[in-house]
Amino acid sequence: MFAKEVYVRRRAELAQKMREAGQNGIILFVGNAEAPAQYKDNCYKWRQDSSWLYYWGLDEPLMAAVLDIDSGAETLFADDVDIDDIIWMGPQPSVRSKADAVGVAGTAPYSAVEDPVALALKSGRPVHFLPPSRYFNTLRLQQLVPGGKPSEALVKAVISQRLIKEDIEIAALDHACYLGYQMHSVARDAIRIGIVEQDIVGQMEGVALAKGWGVSFPTILTQHGETLHNHIHDKIIEPGKLMVIDAGVESNEHYASDFTRTYPTTGKFTQKQREVYQIVYECNELAFSLSKPGITYRDIHLATARKMLEGLSALGLVKGDLDEMVAKGIAGLFQPHGLGHNMGMDVHDMEDLGENLVGYDPDQTRAKQLGLGSLRMARRLRPGHVITDEPGIYFIPALIEKFKKEGLGYDFVNYAKLESYYDFGGIRLEDDVLITADGARRLGPKRLPISPEEVEAAMKR
Amino acid sequence: MFAKEVYVRRRAELAQKMREAGQNGIILFVGNAEAPAQYKDNCYKWRQDSSWLYYWGLDEPLMAAVLDIDSGAETLFADDVDIDDIIWMGPQPSVRSKADAVGVAGTAPYSAVEDPVALALKSGRPVHFLPPSRYFNTLRLQQLVPGGKPSEALVKAVISQRLIKEDIEIAALDHACYLGYQMHSVARDAIRIGIVEQDIVGQMEGVALAKGWGVSFPTILTQHGETLHNHIHDKIIEPGKLMVIDAGVESNEHYASDFTRTYPTTGKFTQKQREVYQIVYECNELAFSLSKPGITYRDIHLATARKMLEGLSALGLVKGDLDEMVAKGIAGLFQPHGLGHNMGMDVHDMEDLGENLVGYDPDQTRAKQLGLGSLRMARRLRPGHVITDEPGIYFIPALIEKFKKEGLGYDFVNYAKLESYYDFGGIRLEDDVLITADGARRLGPKRLPISPEEVEAAMKR
Repeated sequence: MFAKEVYVRRRAELAQKMREAGQNGIILFVGNAEAPAQYKDNCYKWRQDSSWLYYWGLDEPLMAAVLDIDSGAETLFADDVDIDDIIWMGPQPSVRSKADAVGVAGTAPYSAVEDPVALALKSGRPVHFLPPSRYFNTLRLQQLVPGGKPSEALVKAVISQRLIKEDIEIAALDHACYLGYQMHSVARDAIRIGIVEQDIVGQMEGVALAKGWGVSFPTILTQHGETLHNHIHDKIIEPGKLMVIDAGVESNEHYASDFTRTYPTTGKFTQKQREVYQIVYECNELAFSLSKPGITYRDIHLATARKMLEGLSALGLVKGDLDEMVAKGIAGLFQPHGLGHNMGMDVHDMEDLGENLVGYDPDQTRAKQLGLGSLRMARRLRPGHVITDEPGIYFIPALIEKFKKEGLGYDFVNYAKLESYYDFGGIRLEDDVLITADGARRLGPKRLPISPEEVEAAMKR
Repeated sequence: MFAKEVYVRRRAELAQKMREAGQNGIILFVGNAEAPAQYKDNCYKWRQDSSWLYYWGLDEPLMAAVLDIDSGAETLFADDVDIDDIIWMGPQPSVRSKADAVGVAGTAPYSAVEDPVALALKSGRPVHFLPPSRYFNTLRLQQLVPGGKPSEALVKAVISQRLIKEDIEIAALDHACYLGYQMHSVARDAIRIGIVEQDIVGQMEGVALAKGWGVSFPTILTQHGETLHNHIHDKIIEPGKLMVIDAGVESNEHYASDFTRTYPTTGKFTQKQREVYQIVYECNELAFSLSKPGITYRDIHLATARKMLEGLSALGLVKGDLDEMVAKGIAGLFQPHGLGHNMGMDVHDMEDLGENLVGYDPDQTRAKQLGLGSLRMARRLRPGHVITDEPGIYFIPALIEKFKKEGLGYDFVNYAKLESYYDFGGIRLEDDVLITADGARRLGPKRLPISPEEVEAAMKR
């Protein structure tokens, strides 16, 4: 948790932004409840709602808060513990002292949040709330504001604050990236022919739990990198394959990291693997070198798409004018995802608030094209943005066959040659990047080995 | 997943039990959805509903099923994948082939489950469903059966099946206990003065994820064992403390284990620790030795309470007639929880179906007393029951002070002497036990070191 002043300032800024946007009424925040895995007393690991953490800091279940836009009054709604709670959970600080820790003047029991909300609704004052990120919050909001809709004005105000990271957040992100570096190093060192993928996943996630809150998203670790979000880890590691590891640590302060590396299972790339790897590596480097305030990430996405097509052209997999191929979305056949996304407390930062509102400037429209259409962060870069740089090349037989069948890209794609890549898999290389005043820097104290030479050297045993 | 015949038989038995109980209509099963941690695409590790797994076996989100009690007709409701799913998740088997794998004749799209439910409601046929274990299921059932209530007849029929473990389930539980043994061994070997508790938790849970589905419940690892469900792991390990580790592994087949051991942080018990440890150890042994078909677990709980009071009496912490102290619930001051619970696919098996229906025979009433009132499994033991045996002694200052203030136990408790135990912490020792035809056996191929001598020997470095 940060100092009290941080939360006081953030909430004051939020109320100010809402007033400037011509809004009045109250803002209702609903913190998370424990999430049952099997039954109500056997829950997944506790995780507070990120926007709640940002404004109210308190990392505990069953809290709510109301911020009056007009008067600035703030109330925390939570229950003090009784003797039963003390037996099971140990002595706990009072709600009053918790409120003090984040500079909130008013406190009341948890259920009493119904009163100011009902009063506001009755007197016709707007009740602003964020879109619920979990089913519990959906249910709770249904009870509190029957038929109510999330407030777009509030969503925009929150995004405008959370999108630009403060110095204390950047330090927390650097730490999360340090933990991500450690976890990925353990994973790389554990790769051995003949072991089951799940063994490495367990070791990795053990590091995340020992040093941080856990993984920042479900680990992707697969010899089938062409399946973008593969969460099955039952395969035995075989020689000659490429192992994609896309994973991150959430720090105890609830900031995320998110790295991807792709390793030859034997520690040495084949010629064919190295050729494709080199293209992805150069795209990653290009995106970083272009990143600075003023350019849109959409343009950087398109620049890497061009670079990728240039490389694939040299391999004889595509042919034709590069700019025409970029415009026609041919890169999407090989990289059907975007170049990157915002990152912060959430690995896809604020995705619960709406992908387009988070990732697109008001003057930008999201494309429909495969690849570019999946770009989660397209905005004009500003200092304090934290984004991922994660180009990839995949050979997805089902997608290639679909393109072929639909007659797409016939002028550009060498389908005959592509067939010899059907068992290739995929490659993705991802770093986490902070936009600075005059450029960008990669987050974390050290960069994971990434060039083909660095990777082979790191895997030498 | 088990063989198709297992699921076919279980469902036929369920329908038969419902008919025998005079029920008709349809049984509606709602499988789990992914559980968002932060936003809808960043989810906790997937876990299917246990009753769904028991009857329908399929380990995937967003499925529903209807079993017609009268006709025996069965339909699986799930959606086939499209090209987008294949890009992100890889090629998937068809719903038809999934239904075949568990012997279900009918299939239909996921949303079509609304039709047979609406038809049944319209024609006045009962729609039986289980209590929802997660908020998603609550929402889904609200949509499908507005105003509907879970079916107690169905709950009872399901409990009667799931409570008695089949041989294939016992093999799966033995395997989960083997994984639990491995995880606890890693934890014990990792205990070192000066490291942070979280470091050990991470190592343990890494084993659970490498070899199984993960932990079967949030790990308890604490030098404050007097806090029964302590999930904070930020303490540095100090000499002279007792470390309670209560943790289990869920196997990839979704069966749980649940063990507790208590270790002296330096590897050697002090005299005072050893005296209390010995009492808890003897209670654990006693419970096991008494466990066999015909006796109620409530009586075994009370026998261990007596044993515990006998030991505490010898230490001068209580005095008086043992039977009178048992009857007055004095043991609850030291062990405010029950002796054990049912275990199976859920670590507290079927707790979503209702603690009392699961743990109490129709002729038993749950006590209100501290300790005995928390007993989750009181039933008369039958072959195939799987239960935990987990006595504990804790010195909980807040609870002792409360007893004292309310004038409770003044005739029996030596409050003056108890004060010297305020910094003692707690001890719990837990094994997993199968009731057999003529007795009981501890699950898992090997028992974790438990006697004071075994523990000290295992911790020798």
